[in-house]
Amino acid sequence: MTQNPSRDVLRDHSVLIRDGKIEDIGKGLGGSADVEINGEGKIALPGLINTHTHLSMVLFRGYADDMRLQDWLQKKIWPLEARLTGKACYQGALLGSAEMIMSGTTTFIDMYFHLEEVAKAVEESGLRAFLSYGLIDLFDPAKAKTEQEKSKQLFEFFRSLGSPRIRFALGPHAPYTCSAETLVWAKDFAEKNELIFHIHLAETRKEQADSQQQHGERVVEYLDKIGALCDRMLGAHCVWLTKSEIGLLAKAGVSVAHCPVSNMKLASGGVAPLPEMFDAGISVGLGTDGAASNNSLDMFETMKVCALLHKAHRWDPTVLNAQKVLDLATIEGARALRIQDEVGSVEVGKKADIIVLDGKMPNLNPVHGKETIVSDLVYSASAANVNTTIVDGKVLMQNRQLRTMNLEQIVQNAGEITNKLIHA
Amino acid sequence: MTQNPSRDVLRDHSVLIRDGKIEDIGKGLGGSADVEINGEGKIALPGLINTHTHLSMVLFRGYADDMRLQDWLQKKIWPLEARLTGKACYQGALLGSAEMIMSGTTTFIDMYFHLEEVAKAVEESGLRAFLSYGLIDLFDPAKAKTEQEKSKQLFEFFRSLGSPRIRFALGPHAPYTCSAETLVWAKDFAEKNELIFHIHLAETRKEQADSQQQHGERVVEYLDKIGALCDRMLGAHCVWLTKSEIGLLAKAGVSVAHCPVSNMKLASGGVAPLPEMFDAGISVGLGTDGAASNNSLDMFETMKVCALLHKAHRWDPTVLNAQKVLDLATIEGARALRIQDEVGSVEVGKKADIIVLDGKMPNLNPVHGKETIVSDLVYSASAANVNTTIVDGKVLMQNRQLRTMNLEQIVQNAGEITNKLIHA
Repeated sequence: MTQNPSRDVLRDHSVLIRDGKIEDIGKGLGGSADVEINGEGKIALPGLINTHTHLSMVLFRGYADDMRLQDWLQKKIWPLEARLTGKACYQGALLGSAEMIMSGTTTFIDMYFHLEEVAKAVEESGLRAFLSYGLIDLFDPAKAKTEQEKSKQLFEFFRSLGSPRIRFALGPHAPYTCSAETLVWAKDFAEKNELIFHIHLAETRKEQADSQQQHGERVVEYLDKIGALCDRMLGAHCVWLTKSEIGLLAKAGVSVAHCPVSNMKLASGGVAPLPEMFDAGISVGLGTDGAASNNSLDMFETMKVCALLHKAHRWDPTVLNAQKVLDLATIEGARALRIQDEVGSVEVGKKADIIVLDGKMPNLNPVHGKETIVSDLVYSASAANVNTTIVDGKVLMQNRQLRTMNLEQIVQNAGEITNKLIHA
Repeated sequence: MTQNPSRDVLRDHSVLIRDGKIEDIGKGLGGSADVEINGEGKIALPGLINTHTHLSMVLFRGYADDMRLQDWLQKKIWPLEARLTGKACYQGALLGSAEMIMSGTTTFIDMYFHLEEVAKAVEESGLRAFLSYGLIDLFDPAKAKTEQEKSKQLFEFFRSLGSPRIRFALGPHAPYTCSAETLVWAKDFAEKNELIFHIHLAETRKEQADSQQQHGERVVEYLDKIGALCDRMLGAHCVWLTKSEIGLLAKAGVSVAHCPVSNMKLASGGVAPLPEMFDAGISVGLGTDGAASNNSLDMFETMKVCALLHKAHRWDPTVLNAQKVLDLATIEGARALRIQDEVGSVEVGKKADIIVLDGKMPNLNPVHGKETIVSDLVYSASAANVNTTIVDGKVLMQNRQLRTMNLEQIVQNAGEITNKLIHA
């Protein structure tokens, strides 16, 4: 599974990795390597790319389910978030990173708080990430100033960190929690500093109704009018869009992070209009959203649910075929993050972000052609099949054993800190 | 996770199994056992019950996806099925059994052909099963007679087999492929011999439209009129039902096998009206359907998709909470198969059908209460978490290693036989 432009499935090939990059792909590559992974009976594919999550919220997994969105936020999530500490976010980020590595994700974009601590955890894990600070000004000019300053400081912090795998991103939370001034500032700052501008967009019908009441316009029309749309924007959710709004997003080059599991579980209604987005040429990636609303970070599951949701919604099994869904979770996710020249496929010259699946497990058999492999990866594979996860040429998991993290310790610490938070 | 009537979650308890049954549950049970499973950091729960599948169709996994239902059947599935042999069905059943054991299923009901060979495979696997012969008479009296005879012979075959775990079931394929005479015969034979009467019911809108055209009645009204409904009937799918039809099913005591993944993937439209079925008092279990239309046999995935589908469809996150979904996959599935006194919960006196999950994996953490465990099992657990599978007190998998089957051989044989079938 190369996910190169011709979507080749190469049998009996080896991948030579040097200095974190894919140096060669071929049959019978000679020489010896520092680390050798026996690929017999295995399937190598590009690591999955999660284009929207709130990593440290794994701490809230299962804390509040089966509730209406507003009750869930106001009675459960926000009170807990108000008590969050940097230490808790660090432990949550470690736990979430372990989960992602074990389910085949190699790159993700986060939006949350206490970013310094999150960055520390992600750096330790070995994953590739964009970390955006969830900026909220609630239309208060003083708060807007403080939050913009905080974002700038974090940008400097990440620059000084100098990590080859961790990048800062801007994260104005949403058009209904950030002023027009902040949104336009974010766009300018993102363009000037070549950052992703990560924002929640049109997740619920209420958001659109409120926008029409407040601005006399729908959410995307409003963003267009104030001049906040740009090709560095990554809009998470984008469920409630008109064709006209899709046109505006496409014209500005905005990318979309589609989160089918979270959307379905929170039951806010509607289905993101993916076929129309594809027709308009919008780059779409897949995201899990945070574990408080999913409740896993499993991109294999997200791929399958994505296919199921759109087929069922359109009464059309030909919508979103297996190859297209695999694209969304790999090369298209990379494109949405503007790193398609770097990752998202197994191609010579790209970074070695590769996962290896155990093709001998029953749910990936029988194999009888290129199509069945792609189909199995989307419709039948699960985290259980992920044997090895490699990022930047470094083995983060092999034979389902984490190499960079102490899982037992992480699980224990996360449990302790969560119980403290809940019973504080 | 006991799934007993009070849905207890017991910490630090042991389960004593003797002669295939649960003899005791408690803290610090004394004595030594032949086999001991260290439960530290693990979660024991009743094995999952798959109430609708076509096991040997795992051979067709990934063979034909993203197609319209009629094209899929006529161009791909039926031509292949016409070439099916007993040997192929045996190999398919082995592969499917291995997949079920590795994803935590302990009981299933099948509908397919070459049942003697399927029974042989399932017997070897150690799983508990109802195997129904897919009877199709196409309204031809001669064929009806032959098919009824075949069913009777199979009933005798299973009786002579004398397996404590494998039962025969009747499987008239559907009201649109079987004559009224065969359906009524099946009902009488099922009642006389205490068998499950497994049938596809109201899966598509077309089926209802055809029924109205042909009989002047909807499918369930027609079955009621001819006197085919009974409390031994297990209707698979039941997507396209009116409230009046739900009332007829409830009155007759018919059970339902809900197959959310297959329904969504085939994109036949509609959503099975589960809340209305619950209100009417119908027993509902969950099924994966065959791997040709799912494409996995993973009941953890089916649980999650079930919850997502109904929440999204009703715009209501309170529909089908985690406990209810877990019930459907365990005790309610047992009830749909009329074996709720035998399996479906971890209770003293019941058969020891138990799965053990690795609670130390990141996606099942943190734990902070009874509710989070149930929530994690439904919304975050996956096949990857299943460490041990026990049926009838016998360990079929431990530490993810199959104990009763040679996985490598099964995978190889299934691949070879499928390639022969496809290229025949």
